[in-house]
Amino acid sequence: MPKVSDDRLAARRREILDGARHCFAEFGYEGATVKRLEETTGLSRGAIFHHFKDKEALFLALAREDAERMADVAAQEGLVQVMRDILARPKDFDWLSTRLEIVRKMRSDPNFRRAWEEQSADRERATFARLERKRQAGSLRSDVPPEVLVTYLDVILDGIVTRLASGQSTDDLHAVLDLVEQSVRKPRAES
Amino acid sequence: MPKVSDDRLAARRREILDGARHCFAEFGYEGATVKRLEETTGLSRGAIFHHFKDKEALFLALAREDAERMADVAAQEGLVQVMRDILARPKDFDWLSTRLEIVRKMRSDPNFRRAWEEQSADRERATFARLERKRQAGSLRSDVPPEVLVTYLDVILDGIVTRLASGQSTDDLHAVLDLVEQSVRKPRAES
Repeated sequence: MPKVSDDRLAARRREILDGARHCFAEFGYEGATVKRLEETTGLSRGAIFHHFKDKEALFLALAREDAERMADVAAQEGLVQVMRDILARPKDFDWLSTRLEIVRKMRSDPNFRRAWEEQSADRERATFARLERKRQAGSLRSDVPPEVLVTYLDVILDGIVTRLASGQSTDDLHAVLDLVEQSVRKPRAES
Repeated sequence: MPKVSDDRLAARRREILDGARHCFAEFGYEGATVKRLEETTGLSRGAIFHHFKDKEALFLALAREDAERMADVAAQEGLVQVMRDILARPKDFDWLSTRLEIVRKMRSDPNFRRAWEEQSADRERATFARLERKRQAGSLRSDVPPEVLVTYLDVILDGIVTRLASGQSTDDLHAVLDLVEQSVRKPRAES
C-alpha cells in the first residue's frame, strides 16, 4: 500500500478515537450508541466499524491508549504523578467514569476482562520497575514487599478515579497524594 | 396503629430490602427491573412500591443501611476495620458494584447525589470523630490534618470497592491495609 494511504488510515483512526472518547465521556458505555458515535466522530457507522470491530473494541483501544500513556509516566515519574496529572486535567479523564460502569462486564465476560487486564498489566509493570529502581537507590521503604506497594498505589488510583467520576470534591486530594508518596518512601532517620 | 401491624410492616420492609440487595448484586442497577425485583423479593410490585416510592428509593435505603453499619464500625474500630470486614465477607458487599454503575447518575441528578452524600457524610463523621479521639490519645500522626486523613481513608475504601467489584485479585489487600493503618499512625521514635 502507498504511504499516503497509511497516513490517511491513521488520521481516520485518530478521528474515530477522539470522537469516541467524547461520546463515552458524555453518554457512558451503554449510552454511546452507534448513532451517537456517528454524531461525535462525524463519520458513518461503516467507516467507524471498518477500523474497529465493535463498540467493545473501540472502548478497549481507548483504554489501551490511556494505559500506554500512564505506563510511560509511571515508568519515568511514578504512579503518583499519573494521579497528579489526572487531578490537574480532570476533563481529559472524564471518560474514565465509563470504566466504572463496565465493572459488571469485567466480571461476567472473561474475554473482555482478559483484554482489560492486559492493559492494566503494562501500567503495573512500569510502576513495579520504577519502584525497583528506587529500591536499589535506597529511597524505597524496605519493610513492605514491592508487590504490595504496587497494589497500594493501584487501589489509590482506582479510588481517585471513582471520586472524580462521582463528582465528589477533589480539594484534599493533592495532600492525600503527598501522604501516599511519603508512605512508600524509606522513613527519614529522626533527627 | 396496633403494635402487631407495625411489626408486620417492619418485617415486610426487611424482606423487600434483603431481596432487593440480591437483585441489585446479581443484575446491577439498570438490570434490577420491577419484574426481577418481584422475583427476588417474592412480592408483588404493589407491595414493594407501597414501602418504597421507586427503585431509586429502594437503592438509597440499602445504601443507608450499609452506611449506618459502616459508620458504627468506623466509630468503634476505624474505617480500616470496615475495609477488613469487606475483605472478609466480599459476598455481602457484592451489591456495592451497583454503586459504581450509578456514578453517572450521581453527577447528573442533584437530588440523587444529595441523598447519596448524606449517607456518606455519616460514615465520614464517624471516621473523623474516631481519628480525633486517637489524636487526643497521641496515637495519630500530627503532621497531616485529620480531614486529609479522612479523605485518604475514603479514597482507599472506594479503591477497594472498585477492585472487588471488577473481580480483581484481593491477595495483597490485607497487607495494603496494614500499610494504610500504619501510615495514619504517629511514627514510632526510632530506637
